[in-house]
Amino acid sequence: MKEINKIVLIGSGNVATHLALALTKKGKNIIHIYGRTISRAKKLAEKTNSSYSDKIEDIPADADLYILSVSDHALSEVVKKIKFSDKLIVHTSGTSNIEKLKNSSENFGIFYPLQTFSANKNIDFKSIPICIEANTKENENALNDLAKSISDNVYIVSSEERKIIHVCAVFVSNFSNFMYSIADDILEQHDLSFDILKPLILETAKKVISNKPKEVQTGPAFRKDHNTIEKHIDFLSDFGEYKTIYKLLSDQIIKNRK
Amino acid sequence: MKEINKIVLIGSGNVATHLALALTKKGKNIIHIYGRTISRAKKLAEKTNSSYSDKIEDIPADADLYILSVSDHALSEVVKKIKFSDKLIVHTSGTSNIEKLKNSSENFGIFYPLQTFSANKNIDFKSIPICIEANTKENENALNDLAKSISDNVYIVSSEERKIIHVCAVFVSNFSNFMYSIADDILEQHDLSFDILKPLILETAKKVISNKPKEVQTGPAFRKDHNTIEKHIDFLSDFGEYKTIYKLLSDQIIKNRK
Repeated sequence: MKEINKIVLIGSGNVATHLALALTKKGKNIIHIYGRTISRAKKLAEKTNSSYSDKIEDIPADADLYILSVSDHALSEVVKKIKFSDKLIVHTSGTSNIEKLKNSSENFGIFYPLQTFSANKNIDFKSIPICIEANTKENENALNDLAKSISDNVYIVSSEERKIIHVCAVFVSNFSNFMYSIADDILEQHDLSFDILKPLILETAKKVISNKPKEVQTGPAFRKDHNTIEKHIDFLSDFGEYKTIYKLLSDQIIKNRK
Repeated sequence: MKEINKIVLIGSGNVATHLALALTKKGKNIIHIYGRTISRAKKLAEKTNSSYSDKIEDIPADADLYILSVSDHALSEVVKKIKFSDKLIVHTSGTSNIEKLKNSSENFGIFYPLQTFSANKNIDFKSIPICIEANTKENENALNDLAKSISDNVYIVSSEERKIIHVCAVFVSNFSNFMYSIADDILEQHDLSFDILKPLILETAKKVISNKPKEVQTGPAFRKDHNTIEKHIDFLSDFGEYKTIYKLLSDQIIKNRK
């Protein structure tokens, strides 16, 4: 059974940073950080007590695991430059196929933490789902063990399934946050505070922890309260794009109820 | 100074129910429940130890406050039938103007709890914002006192401001929940569990408690990762309306970043 102790992180963005900190906390040895932006690589390396560089050729060859945590665009570039004969290499992307790594090593996989990471917000990794995939059962076991050391929610997920989960993550996280952003913008333009909405935002999220979202849908569209919908659309005529979004989503909620 | 003790609830839906229970808990006396659906009125009346009826003429005349908690559509109907010379009357609607009540009594106002209420989910009223408005300072004070007895977040808000807040509440609550619903639907159709998204949903909501939503926006559209967006749109071609929503929201996130 492979045991993973010495780890190299290729990338120094938000995912790389939070992951490196969580692994270090559990006694794993982050031996090196590679980052295109040397100041970011340095900053992270200081926290994890690692060497760092912005040169691919400086990456040490003796790690047990290489974690690629760069944008999907950069991933294609980086994998061309990295060749290990048999070292285990994984990426942390939601969308990229596992096959992207097959020319970089005989042993490869995915280590995808399903969460939204911000630079200055600490996060408890324990509850973060980690999606694992690997090219062999042995590699899967090794990644599974590593993931379980930092999270209570480890899932074995195929590349196809991971892509579906990633699309859904965009809806529940990126798009929900955009809804918050629209509200914040409208309130700000009317000198009203976003604070008043915060208990509602939290309760809306908490509700679907124990209920199916469809079963707790509320609001004018769900009630088919066309009178209120018309008033809202009328108010939003000063906010062209927000009006388009309001109309489309209300129409869909009405349709879905049928 | 008016003190409110004896309260009549006109309506027995989710808002009426949660409000009645919170007021009862604080020692207020809900003397009567009027409900169009007698079974619901009865159910609530049993919990608050009140009389109940589905007939407008049974509503007692000696309460300190009449709370109308019915749909905006029903509100217009009900106010026509209710006349009190000077009894304080309020409604709990986010959209209806305070003026809607002026023919029902000399003393009128708004008591709007800004939250999403579901039938079978208990809720702590303490953190729920309540928006107050009244036709006189004396009525405003009386409603303010009542609101403060059940909530720590009481706001004095004009009808115009309340309408804006209500539109924003639709975005952050109803539309976010619809995003959750879309994800649940897509996952279900692929035999994947919605559970994997729950930590992400909670963290996305928690993030905006202490950050401006615009500043914590993440995702492919925000990164202008057109490659991933194309993959997602391609995947969503089996989900016509969801694809339209994905495209519109992604386009807007890209535009807003400029």
